[in-house]
Amino acid sequence: MTALSSLSTRTAPLLRGLLAGLFMLASGIAAAEAPLQKTQVPGYYRMNLGQFEVTALYDGAIKLDTKLLKNSNEKEIQQLLARLFVKGPAVQTAVNAYLVNTGSKLVLIDAGAAKLFGPSLGNIVDNLKAAGYKPEQVDAVLVTHLHGDHVNGLIDAEGKAVFANAEVWSAKADNDFWLSEEIAAKAPKEAQGFFKMARDAAAPYIKSGKWKTFSGNQPLLPGFASYAANGHTPGHSAYLIGSGEEQLLIWGDIVHNHAVQFARPHVAIEFDNDRKAAVATRKAIFAKAAKEKLLVGGMHLPFPGIGHVRAESKGYSWIPVEFSPTQE
Amino acid sequence: MTALSSLSTRTAPLLRGLLAGLFMLASGIAAAEAPLQKTQVPGYYRMNLGQFEVTALYDGAIKLDTKLLKNSNEKEIQQLLARLFVKGPAVQTAVNAYLVNTGSKLVLIDAGAAKLFGPSLGNIVDNLKAAGYKPEQVDAVLVTHLHGDHVNGLIDAEGKAVFANAEVWSAKADNDFWLSEEIAAKAPKEAQGFFKMARDAAAPYIKSGKWKTFSGNQPLLPGFASYAANGHTPGHSAYLIGSGEEQLLIWGDIVHNHAVQFARPHVAIEFDNDRKAAVATRKAIFAKAAKEKLLVGGMHLPFPGIGHVRAESKGYSWIPVEFSPTQE
Repeated sequence: MTALSSLSTRTAPLLRGLLAGLFMLASGIAAAEAPLQKTQVPGYYRMNLGQFEVTALYDGAIKLDTKLLKNSNEKEIQQLLARLFVKGPAVQTAVNAYLVNTGSKLVLIDAGAAKLFGPSLGNIVDNLKAAGYKPEQVDAVLVTHLHGDHVNGLIDAEGKAVFANAEVWSAKADNDFWLSEEIAAKAPKEAQGFFKMARDAAAPYIKSGKWKTFSGNQPLLPGFASYAANGHTPGHSAYLIGSGEEQLLIWGDIVHNHAVQFARPHVAIEFDNDRKAAVATRKAIFAKAAKEKLLVGGMHLPFPGIGHVRAESKGYSWIPVEFSPTQE
Repeated sequence: MTALSSLSTRTAPLLRGLLAGLFMLASGIAAAEAPLQKTQVPGYYRMNLGQFEVTALYDGAIKLDTKLLKNSNEKEIQQLLARLFVKGPAVQTAVNAYLVNTGSKLVLIDAGAAKLFGPSLGNIVDNLKAAGYKPEQVDAVLVTHLHGDHVNGLIDAEGKAVFANAEVWSAKADNDFWLSEEIAAKAPKEAQGFFKMARDAAAPYIKSGKWKTFSGNQPLLPGFASYAANGHTPGHSAYLIGSGEEQLLIWGDIVHNHAVQFARPHVAIEFDNDRKAAVATRKAIFAKAAKEKLLVGGMHLPFPGIGHVRAESKGYSWIPVEFSPTQE
C-alpha cells in the first residue's frame, strides 16, 4: 500500500490537485534560485550540567543489520522497530562522543571511528571544531572501551596523536585484552582487525607516557569517575560526571539499538565479548538510571544521545532530552 | 532528595572522591584555555521528503504555565510531565517553522514570533540564514493561523515585509476573524493585542497585493495543499506536503504540550478560540496520523518537531525522528 493510496476519501480531491501540481513541476518550471542545500546542521549539541558545559559530538551513522541482535527473533525485532518507526533490517546507528568543559579542563569521552568504518563516520574532529574547539585544547580523553568506533579517532591517518596534549584513560581490563598481542594471535582471523585498531590507537599515547589506566569505580579527574560496566568488553566503562547537584552518566555501549534493547534488555549484540555479563550490566544500569532519574548519554543512541530511562510495565523506554537553548 | 543523596552505597566512595575533586576545582585551579562556549548549535535541521528538502527552523522557546491547560487537573498534568521528564509548571515550549525547497520554489510555513513575545523567540530569520538562505529568496509563506507567534516574523520592526518577494497564504476564516476591526473592537481588552499583531503582520502584504486567501482543503502550490484543522482558531490550517510517494503534514498548533496532549487529546489550551472544535480536530488528526503512519511536523513540538504519532492503549505518544545525515 503506497502512502497515496492510503489516503482517506476526504483527501482524494485535494490529492488530485496536488498530483496535478507535481506534474506541472515535473514538466519543466525553471530551477529555483535557491538550490537544495544537501548539508545537515553541524553535528554538535550543547547543554549545561551544573557549572560544566557538555557538548555532544556526532561522529556519523552506520547501518547495523538486525541479524547482529541475539536472544530475540525476527518477528519480535520487526515489531519493536515498527513501534519506534525505525527502518530495518539495516538499522541506522549513531556514533556519538561527548566533550565536557569544566571551566578549567576540556575532557572528551570517546573519539569516534575515524575513517576506518567507512565514509559515513569519522566526523568527531570536524564537529569539535564546529563547536568552537581545537583537538589540541583537549586535556583528557576517557575511553569507554577499545573498540575501533570509539578509539580510531584518537589517531590520524599517519598514526599520530590527534589530541596531542591529552592524557588518555582506559580500563586496565580492556588494555589487558585488546592491547595483548598474545590474545590477538589466538583470536579468530576476522576479529584480529579489532585488536590492531586498539593497538594502533593507543600506540602514540603509550609512547609519550600519556596512556593512563584505572580499574573499577575510580575518581579520575575533578568531576569525573569511572563506573564499571563490563560485559560488552572486559573493561567496558561508563563515566559518571558531576557538577554541583547535577549528574550525567555517559554509558558507552549499554545500548546499540534503542528500538529493541530498551524494551528487551536481554537482547545482546554480536560484538559483546561476554553476552551474559553484557545483559546483566544493561539490566543493572537501566534499573539504576530509571530509579534515580539519572541523565544518561550513550554512544549509539540517536544523536545527541542524551536523555532518561523510564521503567515500563515490561522493560524500559528511552526519553530523549528536548532541544533547548543554552543558559546564557 | 538531592541527586547526590540518592546514590546507592555502591557509588558512595566514588562520590567522595568526586566531591574532593570538585573541591580542588573550586579552590582555584587556573581557568581553562578553552572557555565555555555558551552558544547552541544553529537552530535548523534538514531532511529529505521525496525530491523536496525540508528545513525545520527554530524560532526559540517560551515558558507556558500548565494553568493554561484546560479539561485536566494539576495532579494528572504533573504525572504526565514527570513521565516525559518535562519540568513544570512553567513548561518550555518550542516555536518552530518549516522551510521547504521543492527544487524550484522556496516555501516557508509560518514565520515565528519576531521579538513581540520577548527575547527568547524571534530567531527564524537568523536560522534561515544559518541554513543557507536569504529571506528575499522565499517565494511563498503559508501561515497555519494568525496568532502572533506564527506571523509576527512576517514583518520587521518598521512594519515592512521581511519576505519581500513572497506571496502569503492564509485561510479566509482566519482573515475574517483576526483582520476584522469590528470583531477586534468587541473583543476583551487583553485580547486586542492579538488582533493588532495579525493586522500589522498582514498589512504590507495586503498593500502589495500579495496576501492570498483560501478556504478548506485546497491545492495551493505544486506539492502543497491546505488541510482544514479549525478550532484553535476559526481558520487554523495544516498543510499537506507531498513529493513522490512521501508526505509530511505540518499541523500548526494541534499540540501545545507534547507531554500532556498526546496522552490526553481532550486537554485544551487557553488560547483555543473554540475549545470543543480544537479537541475534535486534534483527535481526528491524531487518529489519521497514527493510522496512516503519517510523518508530521508541529510548531510547538520539541524542535525539530518532526515525527510520528503512535496509538497507545489509552491516547497516543509522540515518536520524534532520529537525527540523521542528509542524503547526498
